[in-house]
Amino acid sequence: MTAAAPSCTVEFRVRYAETDQMGIVYHANYLPWCEIGRTELIRRLWKSYAQVEREDGVLLAVTDVALRYHAAARYDDLIRVTTTLEGVRSRAVAFTYLVERVNDGGIDRLVSARTGLTAIDRHGALRTLPPELLAAFRNPVPELG
Amino acid sequence: MTAAAPSCTVEFRVRYAETDQMGIVYHANYLPWCEIGRTELIRRLWKSYAQVEREDGVLLAVTDVALRYHAAARYDDLIRVTTTLEGVRSRAVAFTYLVERVNDGGIDRLVSARTGLTAIDRHGALRTLPPELLAAFRNPVPELG
Amino acid sequence: MTAAAPSCTVEFRVRYAETDQMGIVYHANYLPWCEIGRTELIRRLWKSYAQVEREDGVLLAVTDVALRYHAAARYDDLIRVTTTLEGVRSRAVAFTYLVERVNDGGIDRLVSARTGLTAIDRHGALRTLPPELLAAFRNPVPELG
Amino acid sequence: MTAAAPSCTVEFRVRYAETDQMGIVYHANYLPWCEIGRTELIRRLWKSYAQVEREDGVLLAVTDVALRYHAAARYDDLIRVTTTLEGVRSRAVAFTYLVERVNDGGIDRLVSARTGLTAIDRHGALRTLPPELLAAFRNPVPELG
Repeated sequence: MTAAAPSCTVEFRVRYAETDQMGIVYHANYLPWCEIGRTELIRRLWKSYAQVEREDGVLLAVTDVALRYHAAARYDDLIRVTTTLEGVRSRAVAFTYLVERVNDGGIDRLVSARTGLTAIDRHGALRTLPPELLAAFRNPVPELG
Repeated sequence: MTAAAPSCTVEFRVRYAETDQMGIVYHANYLPWCEIGRTELIRRLWKSYAQVEREDGVLLAVTDVALRYHAAARYDDLIRVTTTLEGVRSRAVAFTYLVERVNDGGIDRLVSARTGLTAIDRHGALRTLPPELLAAFRNPVPELG
Repeated sequence: MTAAAPSCTVEFRVRYAETDQMGIVYHANYLPWCEIGRTELIRRLWKSYAQVEREDGVLLAVTDVALRYHAAARYDDLIRVTTTLEGVRSRAVAFTYLVERVNDGGIDRLVSARTGLTAIDRHGALRTLPPELLAAFRNPVPELG
Repeated sequence: MTAAAPSCTVEFRVRYAETDQMGIVYHANYLPWCEIGRTELIRRLWKSYAQVEREDGVLLAVTDVALRYHAAARYDDLIRVTTTLEGVRSRAVAFTYLVERVNDGGIDRLVSARTGLTAIDRHGALRTLPPELLAAFRNPVPELG
């Protein structure tokens, strides 16, 4: 039996500050949403990413991103971000994201994304991921149903 | 003889607001820099993108982006963005970007990026690019040397 | 008996994108938090501000802001924004805000703020507030305890 | 004879990312412009603020801001920020700002602002301003006309 890839969802509303004069969310503003998604995933798998930086001295630096925009988010939309672990190595990790709008009648797909990250220390030198985080990515303890 | 692809460079300094607690520029903040680059290219080829939206009723919506981060920009760095037309069709256009830091002694490559855009009207319906813009992309008048 | 001024609280976590290289939340980023607070207050008193813009054609433009910073918010802090109606006239409304950090052991005061807003239409001309919103500001229906 | 207060101007264009769905610059986005203004003033009076942080270990933390919005900036407007030293003490400094739009035919006043800042070290403890900066604020060397 193969374990499902670790995944989690977060929901929040679009802020006015995130729109632009096109009347939709400015395209760069989906990246902070992806960051919210992956930090929640790390929190559920181990502990908060703030603690990882502070206690373990490991920072996850973004090495590459790709986003595909299917439909536009608008102010006050209820947004759902589903983050899924794509893969992990000792020094690097990649996540995929599905950004959706939750409507009364259903769900609209807005953006699909992928980010690659690498582990560094405070001085920018390459590091390995903390062993506990690597283990949590590889063998996530399933939540009770 | 093949004409070179239209290209232009812009320079500006990193703002404090663009950094994050890692001490470097937050990864999403390179996308507005790419936007500065392509709007300057459009301005030089035809007229300001603000006029395109206002006078022609055509908006360029981002459909996909990809960024690769080679080195980090820091506060007050002098940044140079080189934007190059990758290709154009009647309804869509793509640009590539090279983001560099200008140092006393040389140039550091920071980020390479690509964005695809599609032409829409104010209601989000697909449009064709204004003919003058399409022509300018395809047959740019070379600047005098 | 004097009715209490309408007020509401919202809570959320600090995003990584909101920090700067000082390791704290960049000072401008408290203003979108105030916006979240007042839009939630409007939602509870009447309907979503998105609907006010769309259905009533009334926009609330910020005319003045003042913020006082007492302590710094940090990444991943749990933030509570308490928004209170300060006063309302037919064309203008003012809110005060208290931004706090919710800790395990208590509450830290971070920022106190005030914003004044004026009602305009889509073309920027002065308007009066929608009568229902004016009434809701002046005579809020108390929530059941 | 009284010396004029140190002052400087910077000019740049409004970015698309700085607009919101009202079609104007989002009100929080004037604060990074003020930051650009005061860092240029510090650069001209002494050295870059980046160097002040790095070489002197002194950070200027914002303690209070006030902005008054007279007219709205729009995408691609040419913006001029005039920053003037309001006053300085050993541990604190205040600046005022005038944000204007430069048109073909003249100048529009957009926003007037004031920020207070206090000197701290990397750990947030109060510090005094570097003596050279304090001196430069108090006895600016006039530029040759």
